[in-house]
Amino acid sequence: MINHRGPEFAEIIDRMTANFKTILGTQGRAYFLTASGTGSMEAAIVNTLSAGDRVLSISIGSFGNRFGDIAEAYGAEVTRIEFEWGTAADPEKVRETLVSMPDCAAVIVTHNESSTGVMNPIADISKVVHAESDALILVDAVSSAAGVPLPMDDWGLDVVGTASQKSWVAPPGIAMVAMSDRAWKAHETSTIPKYYFDIDQYEKFLQIGQPPFTPALSVIYALDHSLQAIVAEGIEEVLTRHAARAQQTRDGAKRIGLELFPDASIASDTVTAIRVPEGIDGKSLVSRARDEYNVELGGGQEKLAGQIIRIGHMGWVQPEHIDESIDAVEKSLADLRA
Amino acid sequence: MINHRGPEFAEIIDRMTANFKTILGTQGRAYFLTASGTGSMEAAIVNTLSAGDRVLSISIGSFGNRFGDIAEAYGAEVTRIEFEWGTAADPEKVRETLVSMPDCAAVIVTHNESSTGVMNPIADISKVVHAESDALILVDAVSSAAGVPLPMDDWGLDVVGTASQKSWVAPPGIAMVAMSDRAWKAHETSTIPKYYFDIDQYEKFLQIGQPPFTPALSVIYALDHSLQAIVAEGIEEVLTRHAARAQQTRDGAKRIGLELFPDASIASDTVTAIRVPEGIDGKSLVSRARDEYNVELGGGQEKLAGQIIRIGHMGWVQPEHIDESIDAVEKSLADLRA
Repeated sequence: MINHRGPEFAEIIDRMTANFKTILGTQGRAYFLTASGTGSMEAAIVNTLSAGDRVLSISIGSFGNRFGDIAEAYGAEVTRIEFEWGTAADPEKVRETLVSMPDCAAVIVTHNESSTGVMNPIADISKVVHAESDALILVDAVSSAAGVPLPMDDWGLDVVGTASQKSWVAPPGIAMVAMSDRAWKAHETSTIPKYYFDIDQYEKFLQIGQPPFTPALSVIYALDHSLQAIVAEGIEEVLTRHAARAQQTRDGAKRIGLELFPDASIASDTVTAIRVPEGIDGKSLVSRARDEYNVELGGGQEKLAGQIIRIGHMGWVQPEHIDESIDAVEKSLADLRA
Repeated sequence: MINHRGPEFAEIIDRMTANFKTILGTQGRAYFLTASGTGSMEAAIVNTLSAGDRVLSISIGSFGNRFGDIAEAYGAEVTRIEFEWGTAADPEKVRETLVSMPDCAAVIVTHNESSTGVMNPIADISKVVHAESDALILVDAVSSAAGVPLPMDDWGLDVVGTASQKSWVAPPGIAMVAMSDRAWKAHETSTIPKYYFDIDQYEKFLQIGQPPFTPALSVIYALDHSLQAIVAEGIEEVLTRHAARAQQTRDGAKRIGLELFPDASIASDTVTAIRVPEGIDGKSLVSRARDEYNVELGGGQEKLAGQIIRIGHMGWVQPEHIDESIDAVEKSLADLRA
């Protein structure tokens, strides 16, 4: 552990900030908070909005619902559009709702919905938002950024929140937030009460190369290393690698006779959701794979409990890891059917 | 990394919760949040208070001021008693103020003020609070718990907040919060907006052995280990060890001709603040010790910048580490005077 108020930390945080911005393709501001990914979603809300602000929440699963819940917890007037789990948000439906909300302050949306393995068409949604309103667009990119394309400035996104343990290949513990100039301006008039997630403090201390509060240093070290590795490999190469692993996973599921949960055209490149075959209990499948084959699958959440399994393929996942996972699913299914 | 929604994590979190409560001497509730120590202070405020509540903030330094700032940020009506930096809070002064605040909802106070190396008489303050009011007592124990005596239930404390990187001997990243039944009851009527730090979610998920949000797992592992080690060594032995290291540090400072910043009777057992001798710049002293002798001293904060140095002696600090630090101070002073 180093002194987080000393010169070594200043060097690290400057380098991390620059690399994170390069990877996201943004000229905006960026901050590292000691928190889970949900902390980045909360930071997006509390730093740009005020109680009573109208917010349009687009949800295609449990993380989308959570984003809306956070906005509501802080007193926003939330209008929710919920699409069926397993489908993606339809930008035209977003347009229809948005035109009836002339005072909409922000549209909040999940990029990659981990709970259903679906990716939302963020670029198209952002176009609609900017065409029809002055609303900010706040994106939960916890499980997408650094795994799938998300050129923040090109796509006109105002806040992007993500987390160290996902495609950033570091342990969990650091939430990352990037903000556009519009978001920073909104922050100046935001009246939601805040302290720990108040971006003002992070900005003020960043000027002197320090964090406002003692950060999760061990995670900072790992993340600094990962950010450098991603920039060194090249973000395009990293994204191509993620797409290849995702395709391998989808092909593998098909090979062992399973169906994807979402349509392949909207399937996530960071997590694949697979339908559990009829007559099989998804929870038993997850347990079997863990106990007999030492492979940790994700199960279905909430209304999908027992109905799907999920295989993550973010970060430094290698082709043989995917093979192992598919293999474990095949064997576990055979065991359960025996 | 394990699945934080799997059976291994459930075992870890149950064990950690039990050990943490044993060490603090409480039958109350306890939670682990992924955050800096400041997150534990914020959790104490947002979970027990409502906007407009009257709060008495007792401060003897920069961390005390921060606690008051957090309460104010969330809309509490904060009355502040500030004692001179380098002194401890006087329970009789607290009584005088408290009797004029019949509707006081909470008294907030720092146990160990790291910025000045002073420990507050929390047991005496708590007695006054309970004798004169129905106010809750919320304690910032970030740099005291597990290093100095803090029997939570015996002393009648309602919320105790602390952090993994201090006397708990783990890396930074996990904030820890313990709550009495009174605090839990206050939580039920608290209307401050909250989500990430809402203790309801932590309680609900604890029932099924899960965290509500992905925790800083690497820190969780280390902290689990430390908590077991503290219980195995025995909390009394751990506290005795801390007291011995503190005494060694104070003796060492005296031996090389330096004065403690606070009076020895109120000097902290986890961090020692030493007055920088006249004619010496404290910042140069800190730099010199770092650059020439590889010893990381703390400097003075805010109004004490340049005037004091601070030596931490929390956790597994060994006698030879203290000797090294004192030695580095002595040599650096000689260098600066040469």
